[in-house]
Amino acid sequence: MSATATEEALGTRIEAALRRRFSAHTAAAEKYGPGFTELWTVAAEHALGGKLIRPRLLVDLAQALSPHPLSAEASESAIDVAAEVELLHFAFLLHDDVIDGDLIRRRGPNLIGTLVAGRPDAPAAPKLHWARSSAILLGDLLLTSAVLGFARVDVSVHARDRLLSLLEQTILETVAGEHADVALSDGMITPDLRTILSTSAYKTATYSFVLPLRAAAVLAGSSAATEQRLTTIGRHLGLAYQLQDDLLSVFGDPDEHGKDPFSDLREGKETAIISYARMTSHWEGIEQHFGRADLSGADGSRARDRLRECGAEAFVRGLVREHLEAASTVLRDAESEGTLPPAAGRTIRALASRVDGRER
Amino acid sequence: MSATATEEALGTRIEAALRRRFSAHTAAAEKYGPGFTELWTVAAEHALGGKLIRPRLLVDLAQALSPHPLSAEASESAIDVAAEVELLHFAFLLHDDVIDGDLIRRRGPNLIGTLVAGRPDAPAAPKLHWARSSAILLGDLLLTSAVLGFARVDVSVHARDRLLSLLEQTILETVAGEHADVALSDGMITPDLRTILSTSAYKTATYSFVLPLRAAAVLAGSSAATEQRLTTIGRHLGLAYQLQDDLLSVFGDPDEHGKDPFSDLREGKETAIISYARMTSHWEGIEQHFGRADLSGADGSRARDRLRECGAEAFVRGLVREHLEAASTVLRDAESEGTLPPAAGRTIRALASRVDGRER
Repeated sequence: MSATATEEALGTRIEAALRRRFSAHTAAAEKYGPGFTELWTVAAEHALGGKLIRPRLLVDLAQALSPHPLSAEASESAIDVAAEVELLHFAFLLHDDVIDGDLIRRRGPNLIGTLVAGRPDAPAAPKLHWARSSAILLGDLLLTSAVLGFARVDVSVHARDRLLSLLEQTILETVAGEHADVALSDGMITPDLRTILSTSAYKTATYSFVLPLRAAAVLAGSSAATEQRLTTIGRHLGLAYQLQDDLLSVFGDPDEHGKDPFSDLREGKETAIISYARMTSHWEGIEQHFGRADLSGADGSRARDRLRECGAEAFVRGLVREHLEAASTVLRDAESEGTLPPAAGRTIRALASRVDGRER
Repeated sequence: MSATATEEALGTRIEAALRRRFSAHTAAAEKYGPGFTELWTVAAEHALGGKLIRPRLLVDLAQALSPHPLSAEASESAIDVAAEVELLHFAFLLHDDVIDGDLIRRRGPNLIGTLVAGRPDAPAAPKLHWARSSAILLGDLLLTSAVLGFARVDVSVHARDRLLSLLEQTILETVAGEHADVALSDGMITPDLRTILSTSAYKTATYSFVLPLRAAAVLAGSSAATEQRLTTIGRHLGLAYQLQDDLLSVFGDPDEHGKDPFSDLREGKETAIISYARMTSHWEGIEQHFGRADLSGADGSRARDRLRECGAEAFVRGLVREHLEAASTVLRDAESEGTLPPAAGRTIRALASRVDGRER
């Protein structure tokens, strides 16, 4: 098969594994009434059809790290773990949307927004409470399901223990990062640059980058040294990705990324950009627009221009560059010392160039 | 040792197992800053010092079901599973309090209320958002921790698979029950008696009664028939307990149960009492007081008298009686067919009499 055909086949297999999980959950839900079944049906609509970046990376890298082609069983186990990683991602998004009060994600209604829209005749306040509570509860079930999935994957006892420790560490860091993010936006902790950078790394980089890379290493039976190199690479790439995300929200093309161009400014989101700007003499002119729910387009543009002039944009672009270079250095070292085979290097370089060239 | 000394020793061992878990979590939290460490410290204060009804029941019954005294290892595994059951209970309470908007539990502030009270100088709205988000996130970690604890317990592969299936089923039913409870109170589904009774059974009876009874059976190596009997008994006792709870909230002595005597009426909580009353001609006189946040003590007393007159109190007391009798019948049958040994019968009768004689 050509590379593209293989990629298509992989996407199809991961998608099928996810569909099987949602079908089983929806069937089990029927016993508990139509409302609960509806919740699972809506959940499947939102969780399926994505780009599957994390699970694809995991399976690709497990194959690339392995000295031999993966057996049918090992390949099936990798698909299983990959599907659980995607469910975990969806569980985090659900609780994140409850915490942020969001009804929209990527131009469309999120699960909460879809539930609300599905009951046009119900009064607004109880309907919204019911939809948000549904997202909390569904997140609990998906989180449970992901942990159970890891516990049940068909691998050696040793690999299973490594996967469970990895998952435990991942969930802890993600939750700690989310907790710090909430504390920052609610003004309960000081928004210094160091806290903001570690919050970004914990909240997103760990489960989106480090988890798939390390899980691939465990499934391929790689050494602890390989896993360590992948951890460092994952942290750098994950942080570069998150900083790119912050840059795109403020300076990117809304037609490309599909978000409200000033939503981060309106929400008063504490990013590395803002943290840098606070330390400059331009902050006074930015502060008056920061965290204003009623920020106009003209004022938003003005604040954005000042964030550029004060050097915040250039500073954060420099950070992205530094982290991409650091990842690249670790990768080269690992290749020359033999802890990462050439095929794995190619998979990681493809990932790094996606982070680098990202416009949406 | 006397029975009381044994009970004290058991309570101390379960408490110690819980303390070890919270110490480990708090130590791991330190890496993520003082705010996250504080969250775990407050969590330990709220989770420790309880009556440990579920974990005690589990360990007592595991011993009573076993034909021989439990080995030191088996006893330690039972304590471990029991501690995870208590953590699961605490995780459910946290998400329940977020969903219900509660700041109080059993006369004192709950975790959310404690976090809010600990920051007297912070503005009210972001402080409350931060405290509620903290409860969602901490609940996620405790849920994860309980599932991982079950996955790692030191028992045979067969017993571990049974425990994981039991836990999966328990979390599903509890969440489905909570989801129906939210849908009832938000007016998204019809409050008929059948829905209300199954919601009560799923939301509380499953994890508080069926889970400890069945986990004990698995740990004692009991047969599938024994586990089946215990499931039926647990459902009846759990439902009787929840109905008693509803009765106590409305008709009980507030000096005994420590709750606001009219909180269920003020909240408009859909219970079996209300569901029965709706079907009678007295409902018109009750409805005007139902779900009124500003319900006065005098009007509350009036509503309560009408709930008595219309026969709702007697009806629900009858249901409690029926479920206690049903549990007792299944227990007698199980004893006579030999699926439950006499020591297990005594443990279950002690539990049933606590449900029966409950005043708080």
